[in-house]
Amino acid sequence: MKINENYKALAGNYLFSEIGKRVAAYSAAHPEKEIIRLGIGDVTQPLAAPVVEALKAASEEMGKAETFRGYGPDQGYDFLREAVQAEYALRGVSLDIDEIFIGDGAKSDSGNILDLFDTDNTVLVPDPVYPAYVDTNTMAGRRIIYAAATRADGFLPLPDSTVQADIIYICSPNNPTGAAYTKDALSAWVDYANRLGAVLLFDAAYERFITDPDVPHSIFEVEGAKECAIEFCSLSKTAGFTGTRCSYTIVPMALRRGGLSLNKMWLRRQTTKYNGAPYIVQRAAAAVFTPAGREATRQAIDYYRANAAVIAHALDEAGVWYCGGKNSPYIWMQCPGGLSSWDFFDVLLDKANVVGTPGAGFGTQGEGYFRLTAFGSAEKTRAAAQRLKETIAAL
Amino acid sequence: MKINENYKALAGNYLFSEIGKRVAAYSAAHPEKEIIRLGIGDVTQPLAAPVVEALKAASEEMGKAETFRGYGPDQGYDFLREAVQAEYALRGVSLDIDEIFIGDGAKSDSGNILDLFDTDNTVLVPDPVYPAYVDTNTMAGRRIIYAAATRADGFLPLPDSTVQADIIYICSPNNPTGAAYTKDALSAWVDYANRLGAVLLFDAAYERFITDPDVPHSIFEVEGAKECAIEFCSLSKTAGFTGTRCSYTIVPMALRRGGLSLNKMWLRRQTTKYNGAPYIVQRAAAAVFTPAGREATRQAIDYYRANAAVIAHALDEAGVWYCGGKNSPYIWMQCPGGLSSWDFFDVLLDKANVVGTPGAGFGTQGEGYFRLTAFGSAEKTRAAAQRLKETIAAL
Repeated sequence: MKINENYKALAGNYLFSEIGKRVAAYSAAHPEKEIIRLGIGDVTQPLAAPVVEALKAASEEMGKAETFRGYGPDQGYDFLREAVQAEYALRGVSLDIDEIFIGDGAKSDSGNILDLFDTDNTVLVPDPVYPAYVDTNTMAGRRIIYAAATRADGFLPLPDSTVQADIIYICSPNNPTGAAYTKDALSAWVDYANRLGAVLLFDAAYERFITDPDVPHSIFEVEGAKECAIEFCSLSKTAGFTGTRCSYTIVPMALRRGGLSLNKMWLRRQTTKYNGAPYIVQRAAAAVFTPAGREATRQAIDYYRANAAVIAHALDEAGVWYCGGKNSPYIWMQCPGGLSSWDFFDVLLDKANVVGTPGAGFGTQGEGYFRLTAFGSAEKTRAAAQRLKETIAAL
Repeated sequence: MKINENYKALAGNYLFSEIGKRVAAYSAAHPEKEIIRLGIGDVTQPLAAPVVEALKAASEEMGKAETFRGYGPDQGYDFLREAVQAEYALRGVSLDIDEIFIGDGAKSDSGNILDLFDTDNTVLVPDPVYPAYVDTNTMAGRRIIYAAATRADGFLPLPDSTVQADIIYICSPNNPTGAAYTKDALSAWVDYANRLGAVLLFDAAYERFITDPDVPHSIFEVEGAKECAIEFCSLSKTAGFTGTRCSYTIVPMALRRGGLSLNKMWLRRQTTKYNGAPYIVQRAAAAVFTPAGREATRQAIDYYRANAAVIAHALDEAGVWYCGGKNSPYIWMQCPGGLSSWDFFDVLLDKANVVGTPGAGFGTQGEGYFRLTAFGSAEKTRAAAQRLKETIAAL
């Protein structure tokens, strides 16, 4: 028995455990301090009422022989795929229903999609990067190269025509930087991928935070994307589904490599290794796309957007450079006073009792930067923003 | 970009589509005939009332800020893992809570576990076999060898000490044959796996159908199994969760290969490529293990067991050899009159208007055999059993 030796090459998951350790130590030493966490990437607003109603109604259906549902359709129920199809149509993107696959999360889908690709491919990811893109490819032994993102490009690197890559990751609006590509910039990535014959894996998990009309919600708003891109989207951030689990992945019929349709390969992968999202969850997801569901989930997004604006305003007042905060629940700030990511973490914890995430944890280009998130309560976010501003002023 | 060329080696999914085609053609030619389907492997009884109540209560929780749940714990909620732990304790199996992983299905888990193993391993599967064991390994390019099951061994092959294997699949009670291993027989497999240093993947999806006290519900009832086995179990058949999706996978701490803990490798795989089963589903699953849930789900199992007994009785009267039907919802019968699997399919469809599954669809050793399932309604199962008996008598 030979194990997959690539697991030995995985870096430890130290970022959040190290944060936890430092916060615990500080709390133990200062039990009287009220700590505010702006490090979390998880939503806090409850599921919208129409979503809860859909869950309860579907649960009732499952309890009656006449309306009970067993194994669902391979790619998800039509009622949900049609809702997703209509959502894309609103953005001018026309999808065949068989291009839409319902899953249980963008993390699952974007990890599992790698089953379709040989391990002998070069993977291009941005730096800083959502760690799962790196870890899932490290597990398979693929070569990983980085597109350095910097303050100079607003943490939105453009393709380097001298670099060869086979699999390209783009997350826009980005986790962790909050930066969002314009249509022109995405078009440059699509053209680059098509020129190389690469596959572009587009993570649209944060699309619902977009307000700028020039920032596409979907890679398929860009010409040529159907020949190179796969898109992952989720209701986790759109509708607070981090604990309810539902995603949709778009694999265009036009996307072929090595003589095979990636759509048909993904269908075969999913029918062989997956059995679909729960019926009740698919009903809940469909409720998100109804007028009532749309209105209710927009309120939660607006709540987080207001938090992001509060943090951004404090940084504006403090004269600190940042990106994100607009089109995104994440604010990516430069550490003041030339501090390293972890030194600023310690200062902020000690002086402001605010917890964020050191940018260095997301890649070498993240050193000297710091991530704050807008998923907390409005009251605590306001308090944290005030303390943040004061702490920076006192440095 | 190189695709995973192994996908080209996958056999088509022809079995159920061919059945569908033949049934559709017959129905079109004979619209007046009432066809009874005993080919399905999906449950039909609704979710038990305590399960539905748990779903609704958890849905309410998700709608309130105070009780909302976002991302869950990596391996599943403690309330469910503790219920699974207590369930195993009832069988005399002591598990550490961290040996228990909650998932969304035994099919997902038994497919995804292969991420932990090198592609250069030899896989031993029984023939006939649940097709996913073969397809998931074909996708990864592993060498597959077969342990032939025959009428002579009651479709329960024992290990051949001259055969080398690295990954071994055992499903007991078996899909498709319904045959279930005794403790002594499973002990022979565990000893064989330990001698080879192989990993034994044990599929316990049908354990709830076991009535025979000598048939283990878990591979961990067998001494030495914690050093070689991983067990997959699901609520799909136990509690009608085929459309609700919840599984539990046991990876013992004692199971190490190549210097690594497979438990820690699986934890890393799941935290990187999965985000857990929905909170509401985990609450529903926990309700299955309460006294009320246990009683209600037992009633559904008893209902299917009674169906299996009706079919078995008809075959006894017809003088046809079969296995399963006891300890299992599946009946695996020898085709009467020396007919091939597909010829008997056609005869049964034409003369009895009953649909089953040709054994040849599950492997070469399935030729001349036929699978019937107990998941239909009691009334239709009785009618089908009567027609089956008459058809065999008239051959």
